[in-house]
Amino acid sequence: MNSSGIKKISGGINAVKGIKTVGISCGIKTNGKKDLALILSETIATAAGTFTTNRLKAACVTENQKRIKRGLGQVIIANSGNANTSTGKRGLEDTKEVAAFTAENLNIPEELVLTASTGIIGKPLDVGKIKNGIKKLISKINSGDFSGASDAILTTDTFAKESAVEIKIGEGKIRIGGIAKGAGMVAPNMATMLAFIATDAKIRKDLLKKALHEAVTDSFNMITIDGCMSTNDMVLILANGMADCGEFKAKSREFPLFQEGLKLVAKELAKMIVVDGEGATKLIRVKVSKARSKKAAKTCAMAIANSNLVKTAFFGEIMNWGRIVAALGASGIEFSPEKVCIFYDGEKIVENGCAANFNKNKIQKILKKKEIILEVCLNQGKNNTTVLTSDLSYEYVKINALYS
Amino acid sequence: MNSSGIKKISGGINAVKGIKTVGISCGIKTNGKKDLALILSETIATAAGTFTTNRLKAACVTENQKRIKRGLGQVIIANSGNANTSTGKRGLEDTKEVAAFTAENLNIPEELVLTASTGIIGKPLDVGKIKNGIKKLISKINSGDFSGASDAILTTDTFAKESAVEIKIGEGKIRIGGIAKGAGMVAPNMATMLAFIATDAKIRKDLLKKALHEAVTDSFNMITIDGCMSTNDMVLILANGMADCGEFKAKSREFPLFQEGLKLVAKELAKMIVVDGEGATKLIRVKVSKARSKKAAKTCAMAIANSNLVKTAFFGEIMNWGRIVAALGASGIEFSPEKVCIFYDGEKIVENGCAANFNKNKIQKILKKKEIILEVCLNQGKNNTTVLTSDLSYEYVKINALYS
Repeated sequence: MNSSGIKKISGGINAVKGIKTVGISCGIKTNGKKDLALILSETIATAAGTFTTNRLKAACVTENQKRIKRGLGQVIIANSGNANTSTGKRGLEDTKEVAAFTAENLNIPEELVLTASTGIIGKPLDVGKIKNGIKKLISKINSGDFSGASDAILTTDTFAKESAVEIKIGEGKIRIGGIAKGAGMVAPNMATMLAFIATDAKIRKDLLKKALHEAVTDSFNMITIDGCMSTNDMVLILANGMADCGEFKAKSREFPLFQEGLKLVAKELAKMIVVDGEGATKLIRVKVSKARSKKAAKTCAMAIANSNLVKTAFFGEIMNWGRIVAALGASGIEFSPEKVCIFYDGEKIVENGCAANFNKNKIQKILKKKEIILEVCLNQGKNNTTVLTSDLSYEYVKINALYS
Repeated sequence: MNSSGIKKISGGINAVKGIKTVGISCGIKTNGKKDLALILSETIATAAGTFTTNRLKAACVTENQKRIKRGLGQVIIANSGNANTSTGKRGLEDTKEVAAFTAENLNIPEELVLTASTGIIGKPLDVGKIKNGIKKLISKINSGDFSGASDAILTTDTFAKESAVEIKIGEGKIRIGGIAKGAGMVAPNMATMLAFIATDAKIRKDLLKKALHEAVTDSFNMITIDGCMSTNDMVLILANGMADCGEFKAKSREFPLFQEGLKLVAKELAKMIVVDGEGATKLIRVKVSKARSKKAAKTCAMAIANSNLVKTAFFGEIMNWGRIVAALGASGIEFSPEKVCIFYDGEKIVENGCAANFNKNKIQKILKKKEIILEVCLNQGKNNTTVLTSDLSYEYVKINALYS
């Protein structure tokens, strides 16, 4: 438990009171792996979501954006193996049909069902397979089997991503839990990310939206694997209010605690996505410090985090700060090159824009680590930010060149 | 010869009247390869240049930007193996010393010497080696040996890049010739590009500047290998007026011909840079057509051309138009996904945003070609543009991860 009374717990999203999840294989993935997940709240929940800003949006994104406006939800039905993107009018009809069928079989109002898809772009969804799958999901959940959801949303991710916390609120407790999928593909496709979070806190929809937005800004929007934005990205949260404590008020002492707990879950899931990035062998925390504005700091950090030259240098475990300053210079942000200092895990390698007098052996040891903090200090202001990225390896090229 | 009387000729930059070039090894590269080039005009030439917009600029870029303002030049002295970037005040003094020494030994005014460097960032230049090299260069050029300049500016490029044209102007002829270096590295470093062009046309400095700017916009600024902008990029042109025809006037019939010839040389050099890009196995011409503006077309084309997912798909020779539309959607440009059509070498694979009914075998054959035209038609306006890019291969990762 940390000082504010937030404790990490096991159980992922299932640790949340009144939340049941299950995942199965319905045959969309041809390799027999799980590909359909159901997340169900016992009661109607307050709901919020953030979605990809890609101009090309998957049918599920477009449809969820409409549904989430009311701020209510009860079910998430998610498939992997097919993104249902660039599938025209039929794609939209398919996603609605999946939602309607789920609602009918669970006997809940259709508008409380949210859908998500990830996988190949441009191929129509096999709604028949999904319908059969939904029946299986419901019978499993009725039999008390709440396993497999975190696996069923994966594509070529190598491990399931779960996180949960418990927070003491007065005499009671609330829980926040989530699952996510990261960069991977079943067939050649865009790396996509999905995250589904639930909480048993009771919270107004405007506050939930605010808290989710803030958490996503500091977590999922602070990671990059290959700089490619997906058409299907979405983060959804359901808050069913089933915990044994009252409703959060905007100015209560508890709301910041909820925000902090939510951010913790989101950050943990986001970090797992980078660690499990396509072909990743290292996690690099790109910290830009003393920038003129938060926005400038993020632009600089993303420019460095997305540079193929910086990423291949980390993969090769070679020192090459020239690539870092060059990426910084190309970012479009104004700064004074002669003020820049660069540190690897706190060891200074660049001082005032020129090579510092550093210990090569020490740097070589740092470069061999699995997690490295790269700090670029601009010395021009007071704003810091950190972006998480992976390195660029042969395996990334292989994963994305060889699947067909 | 094409219809407008522009003929490709051999000889590269040496084909230009009154231009002598030579290249040698002076010991900056430890492998004994050529690393110092001299380009000399017999007479004072009109000069123009375009330079990297990276905020971090090499000393030679900063210094040339000052010198070129007068619109005059006679000598270019260029080294490879060391970029002389992020070397502080000393770097600037070193580049000036190289220029001064060259001027003194050639007995020409110092301000007519332009310098260029490419190679490792952050390491001071070995001016002693370069001075010895300059003496060797001059004695070689005096002995009538005009070879090696196009080799001496290379880093890990696999072939020298030269191009020249001859244009009939009235009763006389002018020549335009150039050399370039592309993406490569001697030691871990940024990919950099340099191009030096000369012409014996007689032309006012403002017109030369205009013509160069236009040519660069359509050639070197329309290529990308890894989306990483260098600190040392520069294109320089010298026009010594030694051809047997008069001066170009802005509104003369001949000026557009000169522009066209210059563009041809620049485009040919730019294409060679992409073909010889780090690890490149294919040249992809990304054409974006029917866009609302030229700028929007270029933004879209660059977003596609820089997408690691698109580039790995071409390397793997797999069909994956989902990655193309996703990159397009992430470009920030407004367009209607349901109007987009995509063609590989003229074969339609996407029609109105959805998969077209195409022949898979035909597409497989196209994907195996060394040069592919990828056309993305937005169907929203009248503007077209084409960006040249390479694929992303294991070799790119190897080149940039393994050198140290």
